[in-house]
Amino acid sequence: MSDTKTVRFGLLGCIRFASKFVRTVTQSSNAVIIAISDPSLETAKTFAAANNLSPETVTIYGSYDELLNDENVDAVYLTMPVTQRGKWAVTAAEKKKHVLVEKPPAQDATELEKIVEACESNGVQFMDGTIWLHHQRTVKIRDTMFDSRLLGDVRHLYSTMTTPVPEQVLERLTKEAMGLAGAIGELGWYPIGAALWAMSYQMPISVRALPSSVSTNSVGTILSCTASLEFGSTATATAIVHCSFLSQLSTDLAISGSKGSIQMNDYVIPYKEDTAWFEYTSGAKFVDMHIGWNVTPEKVTVDCGGTAETQEAMMLREFTRLVEGIKRGDLEADRRWAEISKKTQLVVDAVKKSVDIGCEVVHL
Amino acid sequence: MSDTKTVRFGLLGCIRFASKFVRTVTQSSNAVIIAISDPSLETAKTFAAANNLSPETVTIYGSYDELLNDENVDAVYLTMPVTQRGKWAVTAAEKKKHVLVEKPPAQDATELEKIVEACESNGVQFMDGTIWLHHQRTVKIRDTMFDSRLLGDVRHLYSTMTTPVPEQVLERLTKEAMGLAGAIGELGWYPIGAALWAMSYQMPISVRALPSSVSTNSVGTILSCTASLEFGSTATATAIVHCSFLSQLSTDLAISGSKGSIQMNDYVIPYKEDTAWFEYTSGAKFVDMHIGWNVTPEKVTVDCGGTAETQEAMMLREFTRLVEGIKRGDLEADRRWAEISKKTQLVVDAVKKSVDIGCEVVHL
Repeated sequence: MSDTKTVRFGLLGCIRFASKFVRTVTQSSNAVIIAISDPSLETAKTFAAANNLSPETVTIYGSYDELLNDENVDAVYLTMPVTQRGKWAVTAAEKKKHVLVEKPPAQDATELEKIVEACESNGVQFMDGTIWLHHQRTVKIRDTMFDSRLLGDVRHLYSTMTTPVPEQVLERLTKEAMGLAGAIGELGWYPIGAALWAMSYQMPISVRALPSSVSTNSVGTILSCTASLEFGSTATATAIVHCSFLSQLSTDLAISGSKGSIQMNDYVIPYKEDTAWFEYTSGAKFVDMHIGWNVTPEKVTVDCGGTAETQEAMMLREFTRLVEGIKRGDLEADRRWAEISKKTQLVVDAVKKSVDIGCEVVHL
Repeated sequence: MSDTKTVRFGLLGCIRFASKFVRTVTQSSNAVIIAISDPSLETAKTFAAANNLSPETVTIYGSYDELLNDENVDAVYLTMPVTQRGKWAVTAAEKKKHVLVEKPPAQDATELEKIVEACESNGVQFMDGTIWLHHQRTVKIRDTMFDSRLLGDVRHLYSTMTTPVPEQVLERLTKEAMGLAGAIGELGWYPIGAALWAMSYQMPISVRALPSSVSTNSVGTILSCTASLEFGSTATATAIVHCSFLSQLSTDLAISGSKGSIQMNDYVIPYKEDTAWFEYTSGAKFVDMHIGWNVTPEKVTVDCGGTAETQEAMMLREFTRLVEGIKRGDLEADRRWAEISKKTQLVVDAVKKSVDIGCEVVHL
């Protein structure tokens, strides 16, 4: 593999979850991890051993600064707590590293704007780690359902991201670890992003959190929230987004249109890695005498061709395609990914604000 | 078949949809249609011919009054427009006829209360025609999912009933035909009832319609509405109910609990008559590295044993069981069905009121 073809990654943060990224890079044809870092050198060493990262090919740093000063590193993947992502993403951009940052990328839209500006002024690519947007199923839905008018105009959308946290852990979810938006940032990012995606990134005109859906722990971290997003200018639609640490795992996305509907219950992370499906109905009506339906949902399966085309692999492929192009001088950084992040963050912030002001409406 | 075993039905209203009821009664072992009526005698005659109701065994009346004066009639099934149901249901009860009335049974809770009082003071059974409550799948979910704690506490619920009406027909949906609540009564009755069912008929403490979800036609009939129902006293949960004549057919019910979740997309009328299913997951979580789920949804299929056990047949079976018991003097009228209707109607009214006052919150 030639040097120009290889995107050399450094890891900022050695949490357990970063193993997935290591696995994806290891399986890729054009990326390699050459450095990892953690404020605890011990944590970084343990992570390296657990993930078969040999000290001969991977430099292990006990601080983010050291890694960011490593001139061999092209791009960084940031997994530290959200409250630190803003600072380190800006520093990384200033050090001319391309930035792939876990979601939510920042604590609020102001901080995200600083990251994006730093990336743009330093000519590096920005992308947040919302993997499902890269899944081939996601692309297929947009290409088929939306473009062929099987769905018609989106009228209504429902999306969730709930995952249970043991009761004794709930109290330990502090704003320092979770960010000010709590579950709205950590989990709500997904259904809010799904609503924007389905609405072709039209922004809602207003949002409102629903009072009895809002739970907080004793230190004020938001644990659950349902909100309505009202779309009104070019198309009228309502989206309901729901996030919670108090319910079992659910990742539902149901889109109801004038002509059809689409449904997935695993849009964030598919049940299985090698295949994924969605269901749709189009032109559905009750049969005569209303004793059944004229159609049953159609199941569309997308083969992910093994681990080469998982959603993580597809995200990495897109990110490295851009980084390689920029390195070669063929491409400029693609601002589309930053635009998607910023819009998502603005709506996260608005829902958070609605919670703060007693579930009143917040206009955007 | 002995006379005491047979419940003799009269039809009030000969709309096309009533054919389903005729079919169900014809297939039953203990009920028979002995009279039909419509303000238009011609309509009644056409209906009789189309449904193989022989004038030799079925008396055809050109007015509801005449049928209600027929002393051979034990029970009536009311299908006329909702705006007339209140008047005729009360009259039927006063004539000592048991009352099975299509949903919504009345224009508002006040009118429904009059019907229920008339039924109670005349010792006749009241039931509205919400068939899905009688489906064996509905019973199975309650018996298994709710009682065995696979679901845990209900945290969040989402339910829809949408069915498209051609654009040129939308303008003809008048309040005279549809009732004052429009789509909220005609369609919203289902998701509102589903929310109450899932919450074991705990009433919400407040409801609110969501502004951009509300559409009306030029004569002010509500065509679509999404509303949130806030449950708060014994259990905190939020239900989202959505009804619309502007989207394609959808009848979704998703219940998210602390331990599990349940989902159906055909809860109102199953896709097929002879079988129905629901899906649930319990104890779901992402697997290590978040590359999939530890479980996939379990599909539970309920065999309806052919047309003998359709939801219509089960409803008729319950209604005639009560009527036979009352006729024999073994049973008193069961007030549970009226209670369910009244609670549903109160929430329908509250959502309608929220729309009327600019989508402000309405406390119950």
